[in-house]
Amino acid sequence: ILLPVKANALTEDIDVLVILPKNNSYHFSISMVAPAIDYAQQKLKSVNGLYSGLNFSVHYENSNCGDEALFSLVDRSCQKKPDLILGPVCEYAAAPVVRMASHWNIPVISAGALASGFSYKKEYSHLTRVAPSYLKMAETFSAMFHRFSWKNAFLIYEDDMDQRNCYFTLEGVHSILKTENVHIDALNIHSKDNKVDSDEIMKLIYDSEVIIMCAGADIIRDIMLAAHRRRLTNGSYIFFNIELFNSSSYGNGSWKRGDKYDRDAKQAYATLNTVTLLRTVKPEFENFSMEVKESLQKAGIQRHDSDNINIFIEGFHDALLLYALAILEVMQNGSNKTDGAQITQRMWNRTFEGIAGPVSIDANGDRYGDFSVMAMVDHETGTYEEVMNYFGINGSFQMLPRFNNDRFTLRERLQIPMPDYSNKSSG
Amino acid sequence: ILLPVKANALTEDIDVLVILPKNNSYHFSISMVAPAIDYAQQKLKSVNGLYSGLNFSVHYENSNCGDEALFSLVDRSCQKKPDLILGPVCEYAAAPVVRMASHWNIPVISAGALASGFSYKKEYSHLTRVAPSYLKMAETFSAMFHRFSWKNAFLIYEDDMDQRNCYFTLEGVHSILKTENVHIDALNIHSKDNKVDSDEIMKLIYDSEVIIMCAGADIIRDIMLAAHRRRLTNGSYIFFNIELFNSSSYGNGSWKRGDKYDRDAKQAYATLNTVTLLRTVKPEFENFSMEVKESLQKAGIQRHDSDNINIFIEGFHDALLLYALAILEVMQNGSNKTDGAQITQRMWNRTFEGIAGPVSIDANGDRYGDFSVMAMVDHETGTYEEVMNYFGINGSFQMLPRFNNDRFTLRERLQIPMPDYSNKSSG
Repeated sequence: ILLPVKANALTEDIDVLVILPKNNSYHFSISMVAPAIDYAQQKLKSVNGLYSGLNFSVHYENSNCGDEALFSLVDRSCQKKPDLILGPVCEYAAAPVVRMASHWNIPVISAGALASGFSYKKEYSHLTRVAPSYLKMAETFSAMFHRFSWKNAFLIYEDDMDQRNCYFTLEGVHSILKTENVHIDALNIHSKDNKVDSDEIMKLIYDSEVIIMCAGADIIRDIMLAAHRRRLTNGSYIFFNIELFNSSSYGNGSWKRGDKYDRDAKQAYATLNTVTLLRTVKPEFENFSMEVKESLQKAGIQRHDSDNINIFIEGFHDALLLYALAILEVMQNGSNKTDGAQITQRMWNRTFEGIAGPVSIDANGDRYGDFSVMAMVDHETGTYEEVMNYFGINGSFQMLPRFNNDRFTLRERLQIPMPDYSNKSSG
Repeated sequence: ILLPVKANALTEDIDVLVILPKNNSYHFSISMVAPAIDYAQQKLKSVNGLYSGLNFSVHYENSNCGDEALFSLVDRSCQKKPDLILGPVCEYAAAPVVRMASHWNIPVISAGALASGFSYKKEYSHLTRVAPSYLKMAETFSAMFHRFSWKNAFLIYEDDMDQRNCYFTLEGVHSILKTENVHIDALNIHSKDNKVDSDEIMKLIYDSEVIIMCAGADIIRDIMLAAHRRRLTNGSYIFFNIELFNSSSYGNGSWKRGDKYDRDAKQAYATLNTVTLLRTVKPEFENFSMEVKESLQKAGIQRHDSDNINIFIEGFHDALLLYALAILEVMQNGSNKTDGAQITQRMWNRTFEGIAGPVSIDANGDRYGDFSVMAMVDHETGTYEEVMNYFGINGSFQMLPRFNNDRFTLRERLQIPMPDYSNKSSG
């Protein structure tokens, strides 16, 4: 017996496999993301009946942020292949899963897999990224280098040789800046092996202009303190820290430790700018946010940052919406869920309304990104605020009231001339 | 109806999946390796009846030296998993296949997967390597550095960003030498992007002692000619080239091009040493070699190096022998072919008789390697010969009659003092 459906609602059972880590230390664990996917499912059932014929059954598998992602996909798929894969986020988990899924003609949508390599859609043909990749973030830097006429960058990244988030983050910056005729040096810090010698780092950056860092908060503070001791925070260098997923805790003063260096650190951080994701909110987002937080509470998940709905939670919600848009078009077009390539194509090069605002996917299947540059706006209290926003879709900047052009203008350096004995002796 | 078998012969059907490239431009294509595996099968059937109960059925799948390796394993395995995998050789093909197979408890034996990463058997738990890895090769260098008291290495490698053989080769050297308190610099040549500027390279190696190179023959020649022009071939530098799989064609004078630089090149190559695999032969090998070559001829395969049975062909032959030894022990022990972990363990930490001589697998499942250092022994004709051999199993050297200690002793360098104007003017 068929249940009654609206006459014009096309029906399809869609088997969704979500591959994310079980471990709640990740911002994008199964328990963190599941409420958002539930929310999206309910929404699709309720809005105007168009999607009410789509019956999603969602299964979760533990990626363990590594090889298990592929194993669980393959072990499940021998019986029956899923119609859609959401995740993985971790780069090394995502790579083989996306390759395998592309081979099997299954669409993959992730709010992760942010590394530059995933832009190569000849290999990762069925991957759509609903969070802005590191390359998109890096455009913020190339736009600033252009606008402020900087010529010279020094990249400092902490490489944990495990997830390598900072390595991948600055890999994006490196590959964008190198096409812009910027001179680039880079330093890789293996913080696990060695004590970081910030004074040694100062010697290396001496000839550079713009220092771009991605590292743990303690390393950043060490480096900024060393720069302050050597008076490199006087305006002849511009410092950046990239902190995409944790900006609120960072912005609220990671110079502060309650130790004797706090005063120096606050002064040093006056020249440190932070690049972070631009977050927007619209009324509906509040409801989403509240429901997700309630679910997390019920599930007993407590994180210091759980008052923020992060880009991963938001992204996987939007992923299901985007898929629904695409599959419906494909079905209206006479095809069905097995046509992974066509479904994928219909998700690319389009803008749709996500939970927090419009989401634009470029022609290569990657989301355009909007980013904020934060800076210290009150030198007494040491608090941070956004000073400019960068909008990826049209490459434009928005200067906010607290923006100060001086801050981004390199001060002329005093050139200490090298001693020249041959002249001296004849003079 | 059971066929009669010897009373003591244990029987088992063993499904072997060989994953290698179809393309005959690889030294280890399916067509090149298949005759060796056939030979091993016949041999196992004939020798003393012990293995005659093992019925191997061998299937070949195209790795295409890339992702297809994993796809073909997975697509086949949904119906029935193989009992043994031979290959892949290419690093990027091997990595996901070995991970997947280890997850499924299937032994993998390869004459490739030579990169250092595969030594990490916590991840690649079911991998046994029957050809010496790049790390084993690198021990030849650490032993030489120790014996000749060198302190300082400069590594030059050509990175094609595709198979990356030279990158992986020198990665092995780098990771061994860095544990030996050797100062190491490295230069990566992207020959596809840029014209190689050998004169620029000379400036970089100026402060080094031992130059270790892995690159195409033309690049090596360019570098050696540039070194010769700058008189760096006078004995104050020691040059090495690593050429593991193609030594005979190299040894017969790759300085020669029939151009106007031949004379200079011959002089320059007088200081270039080549590290290559030590090849031994025993009478049985001649028969093997002949049969394999006949098969290749019948199959219409013609390669300029097809007069040599390479380490891959030899290795995959030995792989089947090693597996037979191990599975028989496991069966005698009351277990069977599904116990991949035990079979793998029994292949490790043992020496057996391979087609070309004894093969020793270390406790980590990797073959010990023997290597030769070749040098020009006749400066008139410019011909090469082995001057010393290195035996990995006990870390010993064998000095051959043409060995000359002077050749490996760094000559004291003339220190050209920097001009010092302050002294000059007061003198």
